[in-house]
Amino acid sequence: MTTQATMNDETLKSVQPSRREFVGAGLGLSAAGLLAAGAGGTLLSVENALAATAGEPFKPLLRSGDTILFQGDSITDAGRKRERDEANDAAALGLGYAWLASAQLLINSPEANYKIFNRGISGNKVYQLAERWEKDCLELKPDVLSILIGVNDFWHIRKNGYDGTLEKYQSGYRELLERTRKALPNVRLVICEPFLLVAGKEVKESWLEEFSGYCTAARRVAEGVGAVFVPFHSMFLAACKVAPPDTWAGDGVHPSASGATVMASAWLKAVGA
Amino acid sequence: MTTQATMNDETLKSVQPSRREFVGAGLGLSAAGLLAAGAGGTLLSVENALAATAGEPFKPLLRSGDTILFQGDSITDAGRKRERDEANDAAALGLGYAWLASAQLLINSPEANYKIFNRGISGNKVYQLAERWEKDCLELKPDVLSILIGVNDFWHIRKNGYDGTLEKYQSGYRELLERTRKALPNVRLVICEPFLLVAGKEVKESWLEEFSGYCTAARRVAEGVGAVFVPFHSMFLAACKVAPPDTWAGDGVHPSASGATVMASAWLKAVGA
Repeated sequence: MTTQATMNDETLKSVQPSRREFVGAGLGLSAAGLLAAGAGGTLLSVENALAATAGEPFKPLLRSGDTILFQGDSITDAGRKRERDEANDAAALGLGYAWLASAQLLINSPEANYKIFNRGISGNKVYQLAERWEKDCLELKPDVLSILIGVNDFWHIRKNGYDGTLEKYQSGYRELLERTRKALPNVRLVICEPFLLVAGKEVKESWLEEFSGYCTAARRVAEGVGAVFVPFHSMFLAACKVAPPDTWAGDGVHPSASGATVMASAWLKAVGA
Repeated sequence: MTTQATMNDETLKSVQPSRREFVGAGLGLSAAGLLAAGAGGTLLSVENALAATAGEPFKPLLRSGDTILFQGDSITDAGRKRERDEANDAAALGLGYAWLASAQLLINSPEANYKIFNRGISGNKVYQLAERWEKDCLELKPDVLSILIGVNDFWHIRKNGYDGTLEKYQSGYRELLERTRKALPNVRLVICEPFLLVAGKEVKESWLEEFSGYCTAARRVAEGVGAVFVPFHSMFLAACKVAPPDTWAGDGVHPSASGATVMASAWLKAVGA
């Protein structure tokens, strides 16, 4: 499923089929053995070995040379310069979580030669991703694809007369990912939980129960395709115990600098970077 | 990441005095041995064992219940509400790296019950920390004390007619930490490297060579007291290969939101959180 960042393909083939065996033996392996097993300069931590035993995606998810694509709505878009399309261009990556996570990857691992793109577009719902998927995803041939979508699928029913439903969100999301897997069989997927905070003038506390259906749907979609899941909504619930909701997102949807920072950290943690 | 925060004091006492011994045997230890050594549910990663072999401070540095104090100048201050002095108060922690690092600690480890304070004051140099140290540090009895100081010790010689020298910075810093250790023998120290980026109207590239003396001094001071060292200047040099300097600090000194984010991450990484 998911794999170790800096290992080359040969190493992966040799390690992966015997992963359970390796892990089964893991607790008896010497530390030197763990190092040896993670050849190519990679350390396999005990934590990782345990995670793999539990059937979780094997981390870190990223590998040297990866093309990484962030997709989504305004939260991903975050003011990026759409006319710029070179990889790793700060202005093209916007000012949100996608940029902040990318910046840390590029600063901390210059030798990994990641090529990172942001193609989030403000206002998008799942069906609008589908409309521009060929050009804005498949043609870029990402090795790692991260998607954050859903708040508009929910919100625009209330505010913009959109005739969507939760079922349409979930089935549309599944279809999009099936199409993606068909075109890019080896793509590693990261699905981000949509989130909504009770802040600003619009969001009502009474919305949260229905909105939680979208969070659950995203999680199910992620499980269905073996994606890493980034629990943004849960993380923000925890964040709201640390500081008031408008600290993280003034209107309940669009993150402040602080909100984007904790999102970037949650994203990096989820992919094991 | 697992945290030593979950270890109780007995566990720490039993692990810490024999650290070198444990680490010396580390590469020959079985993974089960590593697990056992990190009793109380804590995993000691191979990475940590290697770091400790290299003579670096044992990480993670933080423990449950810790009082954590951020000290420094405007970069730490970062607009904090000085009239508020409760622990973990977002407004009292400012909007800089201290807040962003704190936010992540509080969100990710609510069970650790950290009590976090910020007492940075804009414009401060080492001797001004010393003047307010009793009230703004020793009386708070921090378990973990993080200090970022130095850019004003350098800059104000140029701009404000301050009669400081590099020697005065280094010796004053050492005296401050000796005084701290005397009053708080068990305090765990984090010394942050001062930084200067060639951005804005004031900073000249020609300043960097002399400024590097302040970076080296901070590192020596850290080594002298066995502190964790956070290499902010080195990190920003790497960041400037990712995006132009003014992305990180418009005037070369005061971090943007992006600059504060990568600082917070570097700080958390340095303490092993």
